[in-house]
Amino acid sequence: MSKLVIVGTVAFDAIETPFGKTDKILGGAATYIGLAASQFNIDSAVVSIVGGDFPQKYLDLLADRNIDISGVEIVKEGKTFFWSGKYHNDMNSRDTLATELNVLADFNPVVPATYRDSEIVMLGNLHPIVQLSVLEQMESKPKLVILDTMNFWMDCALPELLNVIKKVDVITINDEEARQLTGEYSLVVAARKIHEMGPKYVVIKKGEHGALLFHKDNVFYAPALPLEEVFDPTGAGDTFAGGFAGYLAQTKDISFENMKNAVIYGSTLASFCVEKFGTERMTDLKNKEVHHRLQEFKSLTQFDIELT
Amino acid sequence: MSKLVIVGTVAFDAIETPFGKTDKILGGAATYIGLAASQFNIDSAVVSIVGGDFPQKYLDLLADRNIDISGVEIVKEGKTFFWSGKYHNDMNSRDTLATELNVLADFNPVVPATYRDSEIVMLGNLHPIVQLSVLEQMESKPKLVILDTMNFWMDCALPELLNVIKKVDVITINDEEARQLTGEYSLVVAARKIHEMGPKYVVIKKGEHGALLFHKDNVFYAPALPLEEVFDPTGAGDTFAGGFAGYLAQTKDISFENMKNAVIYGSTLASFCVEKFGTERMTDLKNKEVHHRLQEFKSLTQFDIELT
Repeated sequence: MSKLVIVGTVAFDAIETPFGKTDKILGGAATYIGLAASQFNIDSAVVSIVGGDFPQKYLDLLADRNIDISGVEIVKEGKTFFWSGKYHNDMNSRDTLATELNVLADFNPVVPATYRDSEIVMLGNLHPIVQLSVLEQMESKPKLVILDTMNFWMDCALPELLNVIKKVDVITINDEEARQLTGEYSLVVAARKIHEMGPKYVVIKKGEHGALLFHKDNVFYAPALPLEEVFDPTGAGDTFAGGFAGYLAQTKDISFENMKNAVIYGSTLASFCVEKFGTERMTDLKNKEVHHRLQEFKSLTQFDIELT
Repeated sequence: MSKLVIVGTVAFDAIETPFGKTDKILGGAATYIGLAASQFNIDSAVVSIVGGDFPQKYLDLLADRNIDISGVEIVKEGKTFFWSGKYHNDMNSRDTLATELNVLADFNPVVPATYRDSEIVMLGNLHPIVQLSVLEQMESKPKLVILDTMNFWMDCALPELLNVIKKVDVITINDEEARQLTGEYSLVVAARKIHEMGPKYVVIKKGEHGALLFHKDNVFYAPALPLEEVFDPTGAGDTFAGGFAGYLAQTKDISFENMKNAVIYGSTLASFCVEKFGTERMTDLKNKEVHHRLQEFKSLTQFDIELT
């Protein structure tokens, strides 16, 4: 089985949407990535840090899904990273109400020894210096390194971010962030500029409008499933990335053609994530449901024009 | 050959985009629809009205493409409908600078006798009373009636608009308009409400994010081709509708499966329309170019996940 190592936050989130609000619940990029990747037949490990306030049941929830959590450091006297946000009525924008770094402020990631030869490395949204540190701990060059990031790091750690971008194969980023990173409005031009920064593959996430995969002159467009109701978008981008990475790890095929499938898997899993608050939907997700939704994606996008 | 009758404006447009501005050039919904439909092997006619100021060369341009213009009334002493608009930098929004109805204010459409048995009727964006009048002139119930409209009529002629919507099979509308018409943010819910107003098929155009086709519980999503540069979006929605209608007329198959193909054709033709100012790109468009771009659409959207 392929190994996938994931670095990112494991955190508390408090979320407010037009449908309601939560207390502190399980969140964090690595949590969502790990839960999505656990849908696949692979070995995966999460590298992260939490405080003494982090409930054992949340760690068990990850471990129960066969995710190696030996790389999750527990700082007994510290507090877990906390994020709180409120979504606007259109669900496409949100205000951050609170960000408490806590133990994340001094995070020195340690990749478990047995995962230093992982085929696939998923660098979830975190300080680019932490992402780079994980990459440097790998014994040999991984088959594929995927990086997810956000505008926050462009604002406050751009040189470090550009340095790690240079070293990855795939970047996943949302449309506004792609525009910010390159200063280009056209996503086609933005993707080309990001290619020039290093990544051979550029995935631009457009939320309810789907995702684009760019590689050289090739483009693939996976729509998002049109949903009656988006309950809580938190974690959708991370779930997408986890599904993308998990599928590639399971199939051991990193061709562009297979990455198209990986994008579809990522979109499929993300379409579940938004149906309930936080990780709720992802923790009870059955393989059969995923399979059924993949069929929906097929009929959503496949057509049969005869071209002579 | 199937017959397609098109009602809509034939007009002068003056357009300003970040790339430049035009004087009064050929425009109008029926012009774009007709040019797009002329890519297909069908008989089509435009029903419209122009003033004595309208150049013969523009009428010739349509006639040269085998479009029957005997239903285009020329009011010698009148002036042609004029629209002027300026696009913002993102090309997704625009300000209307001028709207001069002129001869359009007293337009009584007359469908040419030989087109009163058309299989397909395309009601382009116009006052819903004019759209209804065209429908009432048809001798027998057409196989398919397609309606395009815009927010302007929702604001100032909603009862008349709802009355004509009740009588059509397909409506094409953009996302913001679908939301305005139904008061629903979710496009899935909006489409269901529009179904209940009459149309069995609802096409929601999302500009650079593609188009959705709804029918009962089925959905199809055609992305827009990611373009390096959108030069002028004017007429893209009408070109989409013309490609959609023209393909259905040519193939004589109005099943949902074939409508998927029609949406792809519409998107393909619209992707050319925006490459130059006004109708310029559509008037020199070669069949071979369309064919090549359809191939691009295929590789853009088609994937091959094995579902066991």
